[in-house]
Amino acid sequence: MSEDSGAPSEDSELVDRANTAFYEAMERGDLEALSALWLGEGDDGAEDVTPSCVHPGWPVLTGRGEVLRSYALIMANTEYIQFFLTDVAIAVAGPTALVTCTENILSGAPAEEGSDLGPLVGQLVVATNVFRRTDGGWKLWSHHASPVLAETDQDESDEPPA
Amino acid sequence: MSEDSGAPSEDSELVDRANTAFYEAMERGDLEALSALWLGEGDDGAEDVTPSCVHPGWPVLTGRGEVLRSYALIMANTEYIQFFLTDVAIAVAGPTALVTCTENILSGAPAEEGSDLGPLVGQLVVATNVFRRTDGGWKLWSHHASPVLAETDQDESDEPPA
Repeated sequence: MSEDSGAPSEDSELVDRANTAFYEAMERGDLEALSALWLGEGDDGAEDVTPSCVHPGWPVLTGRGEVLRSYALIMANTEYIQFFLTDVAIAVAGPTALVTCTENILSGAPAEEGSDLGPLVGQLVVATNVFRRTDGGWKLWSHHASPVLAETDQDESDEPPA
Repeated sequence: MSEDSGAPSEDSELVDRANTAFYEAMERGDLEALSALWLGEGDDGAEDVTPSCVHPGWPVLTGRGEVLRSYALIMANTEYIQFFLTDVAIAVAGPTALVTCTENILSGAPAEEGSDLGPLVGQLVVATNVFRRTDGGWKLWSHHASPVLAETDQDESDEPPA
């Protein structure tokens, strides 16, 4: 990331905050906060920025309505979720920002009858998040998350995990 | 997609061609053509557009060198690969384009000794591809591909596959 001038660094900081806010909204199960972080109609002037979203193992969801419905469903089926973000890389080009990160996820389904909490499950997921700068701040244009299916030691080898 | 004016439609057409060329280069095992389709240093002026790439089930690869090495490795281990693209959706916002598509993949590993071709495997993968407009045409900034782990009938239900 460039540290040469104030502007790119400041943008990068704002994108970082938007990216963090996105995961925090998920952790709180706060659909309203999450919805406010996704691009809405007219947020980006006349640009063609239909939101798209891929949850781990899912097909592509297209359009704000479909994307937000999927989050409502996920939140309804998630009692507990926590994201430990690592490897956060942010690139800003004009009004577009591209963030990649590793989501180390710990989550639990709603409790079954007679139990306090469903079993906690750990998941290793990587995400590419694309943001757009709007008058209301940086907003998500695209989120693509996918499971890392096997550990690879990137320093030693680029071999595929499968 | 907007069909109101010539420019967006034309951009969309050029992005579609670049996206198709990306998969055709993979099909031919043409690393040189593939390399030319990824952003290089200086391709995008002073913008901070480090390429990033996620292959299905892989962690994030960052930087042109790491990305291209991964393709060299994949090509070396792939005797045959064909992509049938469906659900191609293209959104263009200024010099950035976001493409989502379903990659219906048929591939075969190199032949084992005494056999003509490794077994053919079908895979259902979804991709989010981000392109940037450069003097040399639209180039890949980010490719994120992930396996669809179960069929979902999106018209009937948004339930997660797992």
